[in-house]
Amino acid sequence: MPDEFAFLDALRAIATHPAAAGLADDTAALDVAAGRLILTSDTMVAGVHYRPGDPADAIGWKLAAVNLSDLAAKGATPIGCLLNYALSGDAAWDRAFLDGLNDVLTRYAMPLLGGDTVAMPQGAPRSLTLTAIGRAQPSVPLRTGARPGDTLWVTGSIGGAGFGPDGEPRDLARYLRPRPRIAEGQALAPLATAMMDISDGLLIDTRRLAEASGVAIAIDLGAVPLALPGLDPLEAATAGDDYELLFTLPADAIPPVPASRIGAASAGTGLTLTSGGKPLPLPDKLGYSHGG
Amino acid sequence: MPDEFAFLDALRAIATHPAAAGLADDTAALDVAAGRLILTSDTMVAGVHYRPGDPADAIGWKLAAVNLSDLAAKGATPIGCLLNYALSGDAAWDRAFLDGLNDVLTRYAMPLLGGDTVAMPQGAPRSLTLTAIGRAQPSVPLRTGARPGDTLWVTGSIGGAGFGPDGEPRDLARYLRPRPRIAEGQALAPLATAMMDISDGLLIDTRRLAEASGVAIAIDLGAVPLALPGLDPLEAATAGDDYELLFTLPADAIPPVPASRIGAASAGTGLTLTSGGKPLPLPDKLGYSHGG
Repeated sequence: MPDEFAFLDALRAIATHPAAAGLADDTAALDVAAGRLILTSDTMVAGVHYRPGDPADAIGWKLAAVNLSDLAAKGATPIGCLLNYALSGDAAWDRAFLDGLNDVLTRYAMPLLGGDTVAMPQGAPRSLTLTAIGRAQPSVPLRTGARPGDTLWVTGSIGGAGFGPDGEPRDLARYLRPRPRIAEGQALAPLATAMMDISDGLLIDTRRLAEASGVAIAIDLGAVPLALPGLDPLEAATAGDDYELLFTLPADAIPPVPASRIGAASAGTGLTLTSGGKPLPLPDKLGYSHGG
Repeated sequence: MPDEFAFLDALRAIATHPAAAGLADDTAALDVAAGRLILTSDTMVAGVHYRPGDPADAIGWKLAAVNLSDLAAKGATPIGCLLNYALSGDAAWDRAFLDGLNDVLTRYAMPLLGGDTVAMPQGAPRSLTLTAIGRAQPSVPLRTGARPGDTLWVTGSIGGAGFGPDGEPRDLARYLRPRPRIAEGQALAPLATAMMDISDGLLIDTRRLAEASGVAIAIDLGAVPLALPGLDPLEAATAGDDYELLFTLPADAIPPVPASRIGAASAGTGLTLTSGGKPLPLPDKLGYSHGG
């Protein structure tokens, strides 16, 4: 209980937006203009979505970043979030978590408005949820919008957050503190026919986009921008936690932000790979698949 | 994995609102009119917020009902919700949970718009979160609004969901499927100076209201409406899970819905009890306090 009171005090220090009303109520009261809201919520479970030994501040960052990345993929502007926190029984861990959360919320201007704090039974893995609300532009690119003839693009680079042969992330900073592509998403939303973020791996997420849109997609593995020199393209394309944007454009369109053209959509179904113009078999494992 | 696909199919059958877009995306896109939204989110952990043996359909009902009760306390009209679900590894349990959830969402017209589904490590207690969004009226009664001279009221009756000497809820239906007071909250919001729902017990929640408002509150235990004949008033007032509305009104106001006047606010701090006009000491335990 003392832990809980200290935690709630620390939460109040972060939740300074008027809609949070000092967290004195069970609810937040958010004034909105008429329009379209984008709602998203992600849960991270210790041992499933992160390694129990990962630093607490990185978990705080990541929990909000993965939701921000979902907003980014719809071109939305963050307007607020709710945190459902499971007390760890370790006040220093809780405190570090909030520090990392505060960092990412400040950087991306997403105020904390409310939520819930619960105790877990002794020894239970923590389950942490954040729900984010964003304001949409008139055009919201869905997963379902890719059409035959569209080109396929990706922002930034791929594979950096994946695990190397030593079992550690290749680029630790990128694994611990992914940078959601909010500005890029906002610039791309009016043009993209379909858009989503890459959370589980380029190949598995591209296949999801192809299935949702009812098109076939071919990826040129040689065109995939690698996060690190010497990285195997197939390993990069099946690693998770990139949080880059994957999107399709009409054939003649050029993206307004730095991005790499990695493939194209056509009539049909399924994902195919080429490298140097030659067909390549799909690997057995296209990426992570840990629910939701 | 097969469990997850079956579960997602069942979720899609419930999430028929256009904003859910068939759950094909990671996000929902909800069109709103200009105004004030009420946001609330509650997490229920097995073994903490419910008994692991409670029927799955009741857990589904209750997870939404406790959030609806928070909306009710602000006089809000439900407009949608997001579910963060932890697969149980028991397809029949998951199915029954969704049936109960669908019952309450249908009854209170709160569409399921999205969320997240995760797997838990083997043997871990489930943690379930629902986030609800409502539309506020021009007047939103907070916990902080009670003023000296206000009268204190409660809807319905108290103590029915509490546990009797046999360790079972006195009124099982009420414990399993609480009825959030949405209509009553809407009628009361324009008049109430402060309002909240009673989730942890009449006494503990009244003390919270008194503290948030910076007033003293005296409750006449003899005026507390008991859920069952013969119930000890002090037991009733310290039992949890009532989900009735607790509110204050200006001295001369009469509530527009059935309610019982149980006390009054005055200058000062703290909660005091009387019975038959005589002061009564506060019990050691005012109600439940399990986080949040």
